[in-house]
Amino acid sequence: MKKLEQLYEGKAKKVYATEDPDVVIVDYKDDATAFNGVKKGTIVGKGVINNRMTNHVFQLFEKEGIPTHFIEELSDRETAVKKVQIVPLEVIVRNVAAGSFSKRMGVEEGKELLCPILEFSYKNDDLGDPFINDDYALALGLATQEEIDTIKAYTKKVNEIMKAYFLQADMKLIDFKIEFGKDSAGKIILADEVSPDTCRLWDVHTNEKLDKDRFRRDLGNVEDAYNEVFKRLGIE
Amino acid sequence: MKKLEQLYEGKAKKVYATEDPDVVIVDYKDDATAFNGVKKGTIVGKGVINNRMTNHVFQLFEKEGIPTHFIEELSDRETAVKKVQIVPLEVIVRNVAAGSFSKRMGVEEGKELLCPILEFSYKNDDLGDPFINDDYALALGLATQEEIDTIKAYTKKVNEIMKAYFLQADMKLIDFKIEFGKDSAGKIILADEVSPDTCRLWDVHTNEKLDKDRFRRDLGNVEDAYNEVFKRLGIE
Ligand SMILES: Nc1ncnc2c1ncn2[C@@H]1O[C@H](COP(=O)(O)OP(=O)(O)OP(=O)(O)O)[C@@H](O)[C@H]1O
Ligand SMILES: Nc1ncnc2c1ncn2[C@@H]1O[C@H](COP(=O)(O)OP(=O)(O)OP(=O)(O)O)[C@@H](O)[C@H]1O
Ligand SMILES: [Mg+2]
Ligand SMILES: [Mg+2]
Repeated sequence: MKKLEQLYEGKAKKVYATEDPDVVIVDYKDDATAFNGVKKGTIVGKGVINNRMTNHVFQLFEKEGIPTHFIEELSDRETAVKKVQIVPLEVIVRNVAAGSFSKRMGVEEGKELLCPILEFSYKNDDLGDPFINDDYALALGLATQEEIDTIKAYTKKVNEIMKAYFLQADMKLIDFKIEFGKDSAGKIILADEVSPDTCRLWDVHTNEKLDKDRFRRDLGNVEDAYNEVFKRLGIE
Repeated sequence: MKKLEQLYEGKAKKVYATEDPDVVIVDYKDDATAFNGVKKGTIVGKGVINNRMTNHVFQLFEKEGIPTHFIEELSDRETAVKKVQIVPLEVIVRNVAAGSFSKRMGVEEGKELLCPILEFSYKNDDLGDPFINDDYALALGLATQEEIDTIKAYTKKVNEIMKAYFLQADMKLIDFKIEFGKDSAGKIILADEVSPDTCRLWDVHTNEKLDKDRFRRDLGNVEDAYNEVFKRLGIE
């Protein structure tokens, strides 16, 4: 597969065209940002971990009937994926109170929720990715009711699969963010990534944070945490 | 009906006990506040208008099958209502973009939405009544799924009734906030008030604001607007 022109450079990944108009190559960087790009840094080796972890997890999802953009891992940092039109929703699931939720709702970090929360943010950097509800998505034409229903059903399944997957590796899945896209046929498939950048993962015994919060909150040992997650998951 | 001790003094109303433990008397004040109590003032005559308008509209709702707390208008400012335990949700409907929605979502005030938006805020002054979604309400134990379904169904009907009601009086219903409560039997009924304090109402021809935004935004002629709404509705 040949890398053609760069289509997009995001905060964590570059996206390249290929000879196939339905296929792009994602190239994972070590760049880290937080607070909507205000905080910047590097997490050495992150690109490799996020690429390989995403691909591993996406193949798990495929086996469980969740369609994803994954096609083929090309190198440590590069993967061929189905090109999609990203649905402009950040789909967030919370199993345990943390981060912005704890702050906004006055609920202590670490408190187990009565049931998982699924929420949407409108993916729009200028507006700061505001929290919305289903009606907002419909009223602003961000997705159809059918698309929302599909996204929610896949997301709930993703949460169940991931909770069990991380737990067998002694990690609690606190919350995560995923993105969906529409492939060339208009079908909703899981896109983007699943990594310590996009999941909050705590050690099941000590509650030690093993994710991007170590970078966001200057907790130190950021690289160690990413490596630890990777090691525990035992990705070949 | 005898007024016993004051149970609560809110920003716009006082609530008194009566000899019947299931009945309270609501007493509407002329006090006006905005921005979660930061801005304070008086709108002369508002209490009378809000009391009589609420009662009129609540009786309309009852005829259409929506149970409300209304029992009996006792005076210009006082009404006997069923005592409820307020569900800690502010239930907001938006037909047209305005206010905080316009600001957060970058949508010009006055833009018609593709479909009405129903949203919840968590009624909690300390947290600033944060915007939440259904899952938040469930996960925080604010309401059950059944209660949420009932509240949503009533709210949609309330919107349809009110849109038509205000339109025949040459006003557009832009958005509004209502509150529900549980009566002594646990039944969900509409409570609190419906008034120019809690509805955005624009003249259908000129888009002139005929509601509390005149106070919030120092547009002047605040009393005139409240009187105009009352006059147009022709409440006896
Ligand atoms: N299969 C795909 N097809 C097309 N675009 C994709 C696909 N998967 C992910 N993307 C998009 O590619 C970009 C990946 O870059 P990165 O994650 O670095 O972006 P970002 O800095 O987070 O910015 P953004 O706010 O755009 O997500 C994102 O915009 C993401 O939505
Ligand atoms: N039928 C009812 N039974 C009991 N309480 C009610 C009933 N209807 C309304 N209330 C409550 O009575 C209070 C009315 O006072 P007011 O509207 O001035 O309150 P407020 O300043 O808006 O403050 P709050 O944040 O408590 O609503 C509100 O707390 C409202 O929820
Ligand atoms: Mg991204
Ligand atoms: Mg009130």
